[in-house]
Amino acid sequence: MKSTLSVLVENHPGVLARVAGLFSRRGFNIDSLAVSTTDNPTISRMTIVVDGDEAVVEQVAKQLRKLVCVTKVLDITNEPHVERELVLIKVNADAQARGEIMQIADIFRAKIVDVGRRTLIIEVTGDKGKIDAIETALKPYGIKEMVRTGQIALVRGSRTAIINSKED
Amino acid sequence: MKSTLSVLVENHPGVLARVAGLFSRRGFNIDSLAVSTTDNPTISRMTIVVDGDEAVVEQVAKQLRKLVCVTKVLDITNEPHVERELVLIKVNADAQARGEIMQIADIFRAKIVDVGRRTLIIEVTGDKGKIDAIETALKPYGIKEMVRTGQIALVRGSRTAIINSKED
Repeated sequence: MKSTLSVLVENHPGVLARVAGLFSRRGFNIDSLAVSTTDNPTISRMTIVVDGDEAVVEQVAKQLRKLVCVTKVLDITNEPHVERELVLIKVNADAQARGEIMQIADIFRAKIVDVGRRTLIIEVTGDKGKIDAIETALKPYGIKEMVRTGQIALVRGSRTAIINSKED
Repeated sequence: MKSTLSVLVENHPGVLARVAGLFSRRGFNIDSLAVSTTDNPTISRMTIVVDGDEAVVEQVAKQLRKLVCVTKVLDITNEPHVERELVLIKVNADAQARGEIMQIADIFRAKIVDVGRRTLIIEVTGDKGKIDAIETALKPYGIKEMVRTGQIALVRGSRTAIINSKED
């Protein structure tokens, strides 16, 4: 089972090492991780997808909360939420295949963001299911390179899981 | 100056801790980090944005290459490349403001992915400039929550910066 943790941490060198060290010592594997700044420059947000049953994830969250550099931890797996990931895919596309690939991109509401002589770069966002589906559709043409951001998520509706805006 | 490193690493617990530890010990601050699996399940890819001059980044790359768990490191800052980031923004939107916010979303080719009674969630992708611009445009309505993936990047054209497909 995959769970999504949204974690607010202090933004300085060493914090990532402390969080990663915790996962490593306990043998928890991270499925994906996205770290970026928030509108408060002293705070960063990590979205961590952990592979493990509920007890494991609860333990991870508890351990994270003990770290001084961690401000907030929220397990949003069971909350109604929007989850998205961004992927860039470089796919082989000679003149003949280009039209077909553009059709696939259209179906998935993906964008063509670069055209080379023999390749296209496609940008697509969605949940894991959609990303897997477009990857499968493009595979026959030959995927040369692919990079994913890892998943991010927000709780639906007006409830704020984690307050990160100074305006709140 | 911000530099973008694309790093292939082995996919097992402890690798992130080793990479993060290196940054921490040397006092290099990470601006954003996106870690996700590749189509090879034993390999993960990290896209790391580092804030520092060329000498610092060169040093970081050199140190990373020394780690056993690191397969490849490429500094793509000076290569022609596509860079993108995904952001989810939850913004206050009462009945009156909703139309205006939908117009802003349209202008930025952003998608509305959730509608609550008093909020909207907007999904937008782009480079840092575009993300900053939509954030500025939405701020007056009150941004309740925001989460970013951190930047990912691919070198333009058919050249493959880092081969991660077993089909290559």
